Amino acid sequence: MSSFSFDGGLPSILIARAVSDALVEDLGTRGDVTTLSTVSADAQAVATFGARRPGVISGLDVARATFDAFDARVTFETLGRDGDRVEAGAVVARVSGAARSLLTAERVALNYLCHMSGIATLTRRFVDAVAGTNARIVDTRKTTPGLRAFEKYAVRCGGGHNHRSGLYDAILIKDNHIVAAGGVAAAIAAARRHAGHMVKIEVEVGSLDELDAALKYPLDAVLLDNMTPETLREAVRLVNGRVTTEASGGVSLETVRDIAESGVDLISVGALTHSAPILDLGLDFAS
Amino acid sequence: MSSFSFDGGLPSILIARAVSDALVEDLGTRGDVTTLSTVSADAQAVATFGARRPGVISGLDVARATFDAFDARVTFETLGRDGDRVEAGAVVARVSGAARSLLTAERVALNYLCHMSGIATLTRRFVDAVAGTNARIVDTRKTTPGLRAFEKYAVRCGGGHNHRSGLYDAILIKDNHIVAAGGVAAAIAAARRHAGHMVKIEVEVGSLDELDAALKYPLDAVLLDNMTPETLREAVRLVNGRVTTEASGGVSLETVRDIAESGVDLISVGALTHSAPILDLGLDFAS
Amino acid sequence: MSSFSFDGGLPSILIARAVSDALVEDLGTRGDVTTLSTVSADAQAVATFGARRPGVISGLDVARATFDAFDARVTFETLGRDGDRVEAGAVVARVSGAARSLLTAERVALNYLCHMSGIATLTRRFVDAVAGTNARIVDTRKTTPGLRAFEKYAVRCGGGHNHRSGLYDAILIKDNHIVAAGGVAAAIAAARRHAGHMVKIEVEVGSLDELDAALKYPLDAVLLDNMTPETLREAVRLVNGRVTTEASGGVSLETVRDIAESGVDLISVGALTHSAPILDLGLDFAS
Amino acid sequence: MSSFSFDGGLPSILIARAVSDALVEDLGTRGDVTTLSTVSADAQAVATFGARRPGVISGLDVARATFDAFDARVTFETLGRDGDRVEAGAVVARVSGAARSLLTAERVALNYLCHMSGIATLTRRFVDAVAGTNARIVDTRKTTPGLRAFEKYAVRCGGGHNHRSGLYDAILIKDNHIVAAGGVAAAIAAARRHAGHMVKIEVEVGSLDELDAALKYPLDAVLLDNMTPETLREAVRLVNGRVTTEASGGVSLETVRDIAESGVDLISVGALTHSAPILDLGLDFAS
Amino acid sequence: MSSFSFDGGLPSILIARAVSDALVEDLGTRGDVTTLSTVSADAQAVATFGARRPGVISGLDVARATFDAFDARVTFETLGRDGDRVEAGAVVARVSGAARSLLTAERVALNYLCHMSGIATLTRRFVDAVAGTNARIVDTRKTTPGLRAFEKYAVRCGGGHNHRSGLYDAILIKDNHIVAAGGVAAAIAAARRHAGHMVKIEVEVGSLDELDAALKYPLDAVLLDNMTPETLREAVRLVNGRVTTEASGGVSLETVRDIAESGVDLISVGALTHSAPILDLGLDFAS
Amino acid sequence: MSSFSFDGGLPSILIARAVSDALVEDLGTRGDVTTLSTVSADAQAVATFGARRPGVISGLDVARATFDAFDARVTFETLGRDGDRVEAGAVVARVSGAARSLLTAERVALNYLCHMSGIATLTRRFVDAVAGTNARIVDTRKTTPGLRAFEKYAVRCGGGHNHRSGLYDAILIKDNHIVAAGGVAAAIAAARRHAGHMVKIEVEVGSLDELDAALKYPLDAVLLDNMTPETLREAVRLVNGRVTTEASGGVSLETVRDIAESGVDLISVGALTHSAPILDLGLDFAS
Repeated sequence: MSSFSFDGGLPSILIARAVSDALVEDLGTRGDVTTLSTVSADAQAVATFGARRPGVISGLDVARATFDAFDARVTFETLGRDGDRVEAGAVVARVSGAARSLLTAERVALNYLCHMSGIATLTRRFVDAVAGTNARIVDTRKTTPGLRAFEKYAVRCGGGHNHRSGLYDAILIKDNHIVAAGGVAAAIAAARRHAGHMVKIEVEVGSLDELDAALKYPLDAVLLDNMTPETLREAVRLVNGRVTTEASGGVSLETVRDIAESGVDLISVGALTHSAPILDLGLDFAS
Repeated sequence: MSSFSFDGGLPSILIARAVSDALVEDLGTRGDVTTLSTVSADAQAVATFGARRPGVISGLDVARATFDAFDARVTFETLGRDGDRVEAGAVVARVSGAARSLLTAERVALNYLCHMSGIATLTRRFVDAVAGTNARIVDTRKTTPGLRAFEKYAVRCGGGHNHRSGLYDAILIKDNHIVAAGGVAAAIAAARRHAGHMVKIEVEVGSLDELDAALKYPLDAVLLDNMTPETLREAVRLVNGRVTTEASGGVSLETVRDIAESGVDLISVGALTHSAPILDLGLDFAS
Repeated sequence: MSSFSFDGGLPSILIARAVSDALVEDLGTRGDVTTLSTVSADAQAVATFGARRPGVISGLDVARATFDAFDARVTFETLGRDGDRVEAGAVVARVSGAARSLLTAERVALNYLCHMSGIATLTRRFVDAVAGTNARIVDTRKTTPGLRAFEKYAVRCGGGHNHRSGLYDAILIKDNHIVAAGGVAAAIAAARRHAGHMVKIEVEVGSLDELDAALKYPLDAVLLDNMTPETLREAVRLVNGRVTTEASGGVSLETVRDIAESGVDLISVGALTHSAPILDLGLDFAS
Repeated sequence: MSSFSFDGGLPSILIARAVSDALVEDLGTRGDVTTLSTVSADAQAVATFGARRPGVISGLDVARATFDAFDARVTFETLGRDGDRVEAGAVVARVSGAARSLLTAERVALNYLCHMSGIATLTRRFVDAVAGTNARIVDTRKTTPGLRAFEKYAVRCGGGHNHRSGLYDAILIKDNHIVAAGGVAAAIAAARRHAGHMVKIEVEVGSLDELDAALKYPLDAVLLDNMTPETLREAVRLVNGRVTTEASGGVSLETVRDIAESGVDLISVGALTHSAPILDLGLDFAS
Repeated sequence: MSSFSFDGGLPSILIARAVSDALVEDLGTRGDVTTLSTVSADAQAVATFGARRPGVISGLDVARATFDAFDARVTFETLGRDGDRVEAGAVVARVSGAARSLLTAERVALNYLCHMSGIATLTRRFVDAVAGTNARIVDTRKTTPGLRAFEKYAVRCGGGHNHRSGLYDAILIKDNHIVAAGGVAAAIAAARRHAGHMVKIEVEVGSLDELDAALKYPLDAVLLDNMTPETLREAVRLVNGRVTTEASGGVSLETVRDIAESGVDLISVGALTHSAPILDLGLDFAS
Repeated sequence: MSSFSFDGGLPSILIARAVSDALVEDLGTRGDVTTLSTVSADAQAVATFGARRPGVISGLDVARATFDAFDARVTFETLGRDGDRVEAGAVVARVSGAARSLLTAERVALNYLCHMSGIATLTRRFVDAVAGTNARIVDTRKTTPGLRAFEKYAVRCGGGHNHRSGLYDAILIKDNHIVAAGGVAAAIAAARRHAGHMVKIEVEVGSLDELDAALKYPLDAVLLDNMTPETLREAVRLVNGRVTTEASGGVSLETVRDIAESGVDLISVGALTHSAPILDLGLDFAS
């Protein structure tokens, strides 16, 4: 039932607060001085959001909320939905209302839409690259400050999955934690003791020996850090389905297929959220 | 006096608010459950921020403020300054204090530092590409929502310059404004009438004919949209120093030199802020 | 096309945030205890906003937003528009709805309307005093903390123009900056180097000698501080149209005409925003 | 023990939030571009706050908090205290630290100090005008939106007293409430029934007949609206000390003495907060 | 006219801000992952709020605002009003709309409704226990941080009355203040001098001697702290109607009747707001 | 290493924001009028936080932050730590500084400390009641709006564990979700498909048949709703260690031991956070 996937996926209250802040950022205390001085308050306009390049759309609800926050009388119709693949030239939404409102809110709406669609598009390329394998593409906490919810939603629009939302909702024990706790056994035991029953625990390992050591303790997942596809294959064999396996480090569109074919369950890619170029979309006014 | 350039360039109050919000985003209401359960409150640590790739640094004050906001007893020493070019392996800052604090605030500090340094690094590549010409590289309003101040600062760290801060601080008349106002003359006249004396006016033109028409009116700058280097050269000759000339559209690292050699004063590049990959930096704990 | 001037001049999001905060300031956590205890929830009422004295109106949208924020079912009709001159007794708006809502939101709406109209009215007196000359009346950054956007808008309603919005959108080099930079030449050069191309530069001078020195450098405007009308006339002759001239200091309704006749382009008046008495308006309930 | 009067009179948390918002208003996202480009980060300076005219000081803690919020290393020493009368030329505070910080935070600090001192000064003139009578000068809810706490504090600095803080902390029954409640008896009874025991009730009356009617019910104060000094005298006689008497309407520096001599306990003056010109203070840099 | 009592008793702006924050607290940045993954966006539902136990209802407007903030298309009908006594099984509201919205906002609405109704119910038990006496039940400042307005409103719904809203709206002189001021006379004199005329003054006394001393000064109320019913009776006799009397300390459902029969005007009970168990209400979906 | 448990368990930024808001709630815009008028700014004081009843302490960091937010010069020393059991009369902290600051911030600090310690104390009674069994006591989402992080921390201080933080960090499929999804199989499948790998899934079942059905699918936990101890025992046998078992409904201090002896892993108790009376603590001033 893929109809559940994206609509409503971001709390509307969160969207409303974000677009309101972004509009204030762009408008300052003086507003759009160009539009106010050159466009009549009475002028009406219609415009369409069009993709300049092929990609995957994400952020239509955010774009809609931007216009709604600036001028509730603007009409915003979607002609597609988040998660759709589009070709260059595709029209994804139509907006109509006061010309001033369309011109003034345009950039904020586009900044969200292009940024989020850029992430969805890059995610989709990784997801497509591992098609047919068992591997899911997941994101990281390497997100743009203040935009994590939006970026993680965009990853889902691209067919990816989300790792932790933050430091608060799951335990990921890394090398420094292991050193500080006095070894992997102590670290896992401490985590198990303090974690709630709805909190999963994952441990980062850098070698098959470390993996072997970690698997003696009750875990939900292992993060296989910076291993070659061959070592990953070994690791998957060693784990043998007992816990979820995640590959991380050195993942690119060139290497991801090989990594996926090692049999890991997950491949985490920081670049999805920290280095995705935008998907170029624009607003075209009907003449 | 380049010592004026970057230090203090972002209002400290703005930084303090932003890092506080970003920490709450990452910590949620529960905090860093991994660190709290595996690292003792007494453990101390020292770590260094190191570049994994060559690039230009931006965001050291923001990184410092992140640790300061989380735990005021953490010491943060910079070993370089914003705007510095660094090689892979360079250490740019050293942080020491409670191990818990370093581990918990690490990601937020890095998310800012890597994002801002990525923008500074890309900007520097464009700036270097036009070295020796008259052209300055400038940014646009195509910024990540909520981060405009940080991204525009990063552009300055990379040797670029800033276009408008938002819709409020300068007038940029585009095609849709001209249509709505009933022609370029009416648009410029209306803008001139309503603009304060400290507000500059720029007009977008798409052809030499339009440029010619616009130059009849009192302007501060013209945006030469999507012109070839040859047409730009023509345009610069036509303008003949009367107003500032800005080239825009179709700018990449491949094309920017040719564009610069046309003699334009400014080249605006949206990609600086909307499509820069991060500069990879990491935090290394002393063992 | 004067219809562009005021409507929409303040971002609606800014207005909505401000009136919401002002209502909370007046209502506290307990609300209007008088009205809640003496007026039935069912009672309806109609009331009109009337001017008690002649003046210029500013803030109708803010008044409307106040009622809207408190009770969206209240109807607010304007019978005039911001910038209108009114006589004592003129009715500028009519409001109808629950009597409780009208009585409770009345004071906040009036506090904005009277304060802003007071500024518009004082501005208009200065503007009228210089009628027929070349001079524009402009405001300063001497505004009431938190209300700058509203006060600068009110200045525009009164026929005045705005100087800088804040420290961020234009460069105004004063005597202390010149001392710190090591002279006017160094100050202007540094400013030019760091300013964006859309940022104007103005320099304050206190004598004709200083003016002469400043004019050797590329400037957009000069602030002629505390000069007599005679010296101002000299200064205007010296400038000879090369840059915008602004007179400042010792400006009152008595002196402003003489100053304007010196030929300066602008006269800045701090009193517009820091010392304007309110325009007395009241809300009259139909009996 | 007048030493209790003003120090600490405003919650420090409130001050801290207000000055932080005011700095953001003035600095925007770009900061003080003039100072950043012309003044070295290393330059130190000393400056003094001086009165340009005689008056009463209010807001020294707010000025201090402004510098503190912008740069915690700035030193701020007061040479007087809120409530002091000063002559023209008096120095009320000395500030030292980074020249950039002093120049950048100067305007916000002055905007508070001049506005609050203006209110304190005007209040003091009214208070002095009624010296020797029984009457206290009190303020109203006619305050600048967002600044009520600061303005009511300034009234206290000038020797005035505060009426209600807002709609929430006392009951003031006006004519429209009486009409809505179905008469003064019903209004007072309803108010008494719903008011907490720590809430006082005041009723507005416009004639001696109305006063007579109101005094039949349990009240704490009566607001004698727009009465002549003669009628006020009559009213005071009628009340005969049973409740507090407040005169309101038509109060100016010319009329206030006559009003006070009628024997009323309080005279409320909206102009204290809505129409006080600033007290002119400036920041002088030591050369 | 008891119809004035509760409707509209909390400022709607305050409610809107509170429920918005509470929704963000529960939804985080990811939203209701259970509902989003298992319930279709198209599914509609109807549900009713029912009391599981007898009690007094408080918070219907807050529940309504919760659904409204999450999804403005949800319909919320009340079948009773705040202050109503209900039996177990009573239905107090009906809500209909998107199943997702009902399921997601359910808990926040219930958390307010159950908490506030719990306070109203406990208050009503105290009020009923003193029925027929002169005593009113009042609350204290011992409220849950952030919820004071809601809890004090709930006390009113239960038939109780409110003491001070906070430290700002009335003066309550306790033993430590008396010590610091140098005696009860000095404390009351200082308070009288600085209090506005709309501010009441109450003094805490712990014995009949202290009461006797305090009554020599102009007071509005006395707080009789931790006295037995017999001593309270003595105190009431001593006061003889001159000021309001409030009993405090050692008040429980077992002791409150005896205390009330001493003739005191008020009995303050901290437990109303700091120790009331919830009233159990649930949301039942129609199948 | 139990030293990891509580210190630092709440993000300090969260605490700072909360106490600042709570102080504003109590101080309003006028501050502590009693203390300001009766206590000299110079007076110093020392006071101790003492327990009036035996219990478990929680919230010392919050109390410390309250004084720190109001007056950074106040010294706050803890004489115990969160999670400690204390007897009546025990002193848990000592505070010294300006008498005004201690008196003014006292109530906010106590409101947090008493509320949180009340929850810790009640939790500890449940935890003690199941000592020696396998069962953990866990909380629910039935928390006071705005205080969830503080209340869940207090549960941990009492030896309890936390269920979900909110709707966002784990999936809990209840009866209505199952109906909406078209059966338990469809619900679990949809949840599995959309949940991240770090998100656990729990299903509510009301009978052994439903349990049997649910166990056919991949789950992390089952919520056994409103079952008798006998049925719970049956359910535990049926589950046989495959998933975590949680009992819920009808849990009181009388029944919890029987429920725990059924062998369930977890017992969730809404009353921990929605119906715990405060632990009575007070602030005693040294004389």
